[in-house]
Amino acid sequence: MPVSGPVHEALAALPLVDHHCHGAVTADLGADAFKSLITEGAAWPGISPFDSPVGVAVRRHCAPVLDLPRHAAPADYLARRRALGWREVNRRFLAASATEVFCVDTGYAPQPVTSPAELAVAAGAAACEVVRLEQLAEAVAAGGVKANGYASAFRTAAETAVRRAGVVAVKSVAAYRTGFALDPARPTDTEVTAAAARWLTHGGRLTDPVLVRHLLWTAVDLGLPLQLHTGFGDADVRLHRADPALLTDWLHLTAGTVPVVLLHCWPYHRQAAFLATVFEQVYLDVGLALHYTGPARCRAVLEEALEIAPFRKLLYSSDAFGVAEFHHLGALSFRQGLAALLQSRVDADELTLSDALRIASWTGRDNARRLYGPLVSEPSRPSGGRPTRKV
Amino acid sequence: MPVSGPVHEALAALPLVDHHCHGAVTADLGADAFKSLITEGAAWPGISPFDSPVGVAVRRHCAPVLDLPRHAAPADYLARRRALGWREVNRRFLAASATEVFCVDTGYAPQPVTSPAELAVAAGAAACEVVRLEQLAEAVAAGGVKANGYASAFRTAAETAVRRAGVVAVKSVAAYRTGFALDPARPTDTEVTAAAARWLTHGGRLTDPVLVRHLLWTAVDLGLPLQLHTGFGDADVRLHRADPALLTDWLHLTAGTVPVVLLHCWPYHRQAAFLATVFEQVYLDVGLALHYTGPARCRAVLEEALEIAPFRKLLYSSDAFGVAEFHHLGALSFRQGLAALLQSRVDADELTLSDALRIASWTGRDNARRLYGPLVSEPSRPSGGRPTRKV
Amino acid sequence: MPVSGPVHEALAALPLVDHHCHGAVTADLGADAFKSLITEGAAWPGISPFDSPVGVAVRRHCAPVLDLPRHAAPADYLARRRALGWREVNRRFLAASATEVFCVDTGYAPQPVTSPAELAVAAGAAACEVVRLEQLAEAVAAGGVKANGYASAFRTAAETAVRRAGVVAVKSVAAYRTGFALDPARPTDTEVTAAAARWLTHGGRLTDPVLVRHLLWTAVDLGLPLQLHTGFGDADVRLHRADPALLTDWLHLTAGTVPVVLLHCWPYHRQAAFLATVFEQVYLDVGLALHYTGPARCRAVLEEALEIAPFRKLLYSSDAFGVAEFHHLGALSFRQGLAALLQSRVDADELTLSDALRIASWTGRDNARRLYGPLVSEPSRPSGGRPTRKV
Repeated sequence: MPVSGPVHEALAALPLVDHHCHGAVTADLGADAFKSLITEGAAWPGISPFDSPVGVAVRRHCAPVLDLPRHAAPADYLARRRALGWREVNRRFLAASATEVFCVDTGYAPQPVTSPAELAVAAGAAACEVVRLEQLAEAVAAGGVKANGYASAFRTAAETAVRRAGVVAVKSVAAYRTGFALDPARPTDTEVTAAAARWLTHGGRLTDPVLVRHLLWTAVDLGLPLQLHTGFGDADVRLHRADPALLTDWLHLTAGTVPVVLLHCWPYHRQAAFLATVFEQVYLDVGLALHYTGPARCRAVLEEALEIAPFRKLLYSSDAFGVAEFHHLGALSFRQGLAALLQSRVDADELTLSDALRIASWTGRDNARRLYGPLVSEPSRPSGGRPTRKV
Repeated sequence: MPVSGPVHEALAALPLVDHHCHGAVTADLGADAFKSLITEGAAWPGISPFDSPVGVAVRRHCAPVLDLPRHAAPADYLARRRALGWREVNRRFLAASATEVFCVDTGYAPQPVTSPAELAVAAGAAACEVVRLEQLAEAVAAGGVKANGYASAFRTAAETAVRRAGVVAVKSVAAYRTGFALDPARPTDTEVTAAAARWLTHGGRLTDPVLVRHLLWTAVDLGLPLQLHTGFGDADVRLHRADPALLTDWLHLTAGTVPVVLLHCWPYHRQAAFLATVFEQVYLDVGLALHYTGPARCRAVLEEALEIAPFRKLLYSSDAFGVAEFHHLGALSFRQGLAALLQSRVDADELTLSDALRIASWTGRDNARRLYGPLVSEPSRPSGGRPTRKV
Repeated sequence: MPVSGPVHEALAALPLVDHHCHGAVTADLGADAFKSLITEGAAWPGISPFDSPVGVAVRRHCAPVLDLPRHAAPADYLARRRALGWREVNRRFLAASATEVFCVDTGYAPQPVTSPAELAVAAGAAACEVVRLEQLAEAVAAGGVKANGYASAFRTAAETAVRRAGVVAVKSVAAYRTGFALDPARPTDTEVTAAAARWLTHGGRLTDPVLVRHLLWTAVDLGLPLQLHTGFGDADVRLHRADPALLTDWLHLTAGTVPVVLLHCWPYHRQAAFLATVFEQVYLDVGLALHYTGPARCRAVLEEALEIAPFRKLLYSSDAFGVAEFHHLGALSFRQGLAALLQSRVDADELTLSDALRIASWTGRDNARRLYGPLVSEPSRPSGGRPTRKV
């Protein structure tokens, strides 16, 4: 893998927009807690999450940020992490990511994590918010609502949420709840009320197919870009039902409304790229795969994602959650993988250097600026309570 | 990517059989018209189709054919194209493709394109015809037929069409209409009549599952190789329903009848290769992907398509439509991608040079000759009104 | 592909555990018989199985073991094979595989093949047994049983079988029979009896969905690791229904019981790797792909299989059947492909050499030892009638 050349230098110097990530844990982490945060599985007896591609990448690329030698042993890594304390660890990795704007999904926090504002301060960057709709719907249900009032209560809650300062997008985890093999049509009021009646009786997570469809269609009405988890995630996902190709009928029905951003996508990134190629409103990233595969395979995944897709349609995200190592690893993998891909095409005279540099800026930053608007494209102008970007 | 060596030289010199393509537009193209022809999406505001892998490949590999420098700017490219005029542009790219026989699907022409004979003349090559069955069925319906006469009228029309001089195969776009998750059994006469009654009442495209099954079984009766679009196409396709693995039950039922050629296949080319490995009658190509991914990724796609498949089962097609750039790009991508694949195996002593050269000739020409017979294998003998191949 | 360096040397010297294979034919093979054994298809007129990736690999890598030059012609290869006789051929290839333990699926033998003990003697290695459950169930049915006695008779037969000396695992070919899109729940006694009544009336192979589910749940009760064929196989498989992702609900229900080892997996090896990443009990291999793709593509397949999976979760198998060439080719492809993968990461400073060597030992041997226990991990200690490992 070439690690030098003008494209590498340009990408190394490019401030990224991380258009989808989460907060970092605001506590010191014991060995088990850290290990469980660096796997989509769990920390199993006899199988250390360090013995995986992501664990190897943490030791290789994160250890030096904590002043350790490359490939430091797990025990040394964990000890150094504790010695520095979570504030310093977060600060170092977030700064190392050289990200200028983070778009933070605030709807998933099984343990306390940094708010967007806290993330921004720690990174010396700006942060925007992505509103997770399932969490909003569940809060509406938990707050007490009648079945025939659910639809309007959810809509009001969503409209209120997206008017909050700094919100640039909404997100759905329908992939986890029902998958995408849904009736694509907007459900009727009667259907929604009947489904809400069932749900409100039994409670729990929002998993009713009618209500998930209703949530997706409510997202359409909100007018902001809609981020959709697709593909790889934890054991809660049924991978084959999270294939974004299953969304095709719905994408036809919603064409001309909101942008739809397919997140992660692996191992269906070719399917996602197809959708981004034939639907004007569809974008994609390969977020989660960037840190889980690490730099060793990031180029390969990007090569597949970029086989046919217009260069205006790929975005960068880290999808980091919990440990700030992942905000850094995502950025590093993206920079190295994309640079290797582009530089090799320049070297083979398949692409000019100026085109390569343009594609690097687009995918690393400008496509997100274009998609999400002023809050992302002019992050240094303080507004709406967002922190000023460090100069 | 190695671009020299004996396999490259052999493939550069090999006259190809392009076993599935379409005509080129017979008119000068404005900027928007050209752009809309080099994407399976559309020309969207702010996203130029030139800013995609295929657009980059056009600028890199097609500009020199028009006497422009490599990587010419889109505006220069379009201006030069207009200045030369469509006849000269078509002539240059078709000649540059160094194809000896084109098998032309004549059933898709939303705008006027070259007939097989015109394509042949422009290329200085031979051309055969592939009859698209859905178009025939829709013509039968449009021509006025009673429901209980549909089956025999369609069969008669198909038998008449395939007896036309120069016809070597039939084609179905069932992938677009219903996908392949169909009941594999041949529908009964009663079922066909009932379905035809519904269709003839409402009109429109042939999308009824019973009639699509009937069409596929009628193809079996015709005795010619059946080309099936699979995988990647425009937004009209539901990608997951165009996975050729869904055809397995039908392939079992039709084993021993006609050859079935899976076209394009991406991103299900491994699935297609599996079918070609276990069913005697199944062949595959990676046509559409050749120009849409361009030379930069063509080798990677071919590597996957050839992981397990017998070398007698892969064919070359450009699947070019509309712009003759694609007849050229398909040929160029195939030659470069396959040569790089084979040469690297020769260099690693995994393959002898003579075996590599045999595989190159088979996949680029001889497999198609063997499959389609004399009209393809002896193209220089004038017959059936086809033009003589340029010597 | 690099073919030297410390990782290559270490893997070349590592005695492998082939955790899933079959016996080798115990007869001299004519040309047609040999050809039909080196394809998952059949020997078709005009298409020699030698003209495929696996055929090329046999000529390249197996000919020298028979004292022929690399890339020997098929006729020479077949003549030499006959001249040596099957006993010597088997002995040479099994020894060349440098395998210390073979885990042999004894339930598939359309023609006479070596028993585990015979395989062990020929290889100078140890051999364990894997019990194929469908064969057992069909033997119970053929032996005469009432519908309401089927469940207990099958369980008793299975319990008896797995108590046989040398048995380390059970295996199911549910992928071939129904695929994995099954109701994941354990069927009730009433359901099983009703299904058994239908089956016992009509006979034939076990293909009833209720009885296949019952078989899988019986496997859970047996307590041994369960090997599941997934993905690529012969024409009998419906590839899309053999996608292991379809097992997710069942894996949730059976978590905490027996290890589940996904065999072969191609082209769904990324899906299998996902399951191995998020479920503690799931393991994978890319067995069948190792010899069918050959060394030329083995690294690529392993790269995909190892993109996210913990290094403790990948096993080595040859899935060789019929010809001992495949026991050798599987081992050779695995060693070369994995070594190239690991060495390139070491060279890029993405992995330390000591970590690479650890991963090589784990995946080639130690993961299987850990999973299957003493019969595999201490093969040199004669016990339970197994042959002593050659020292």
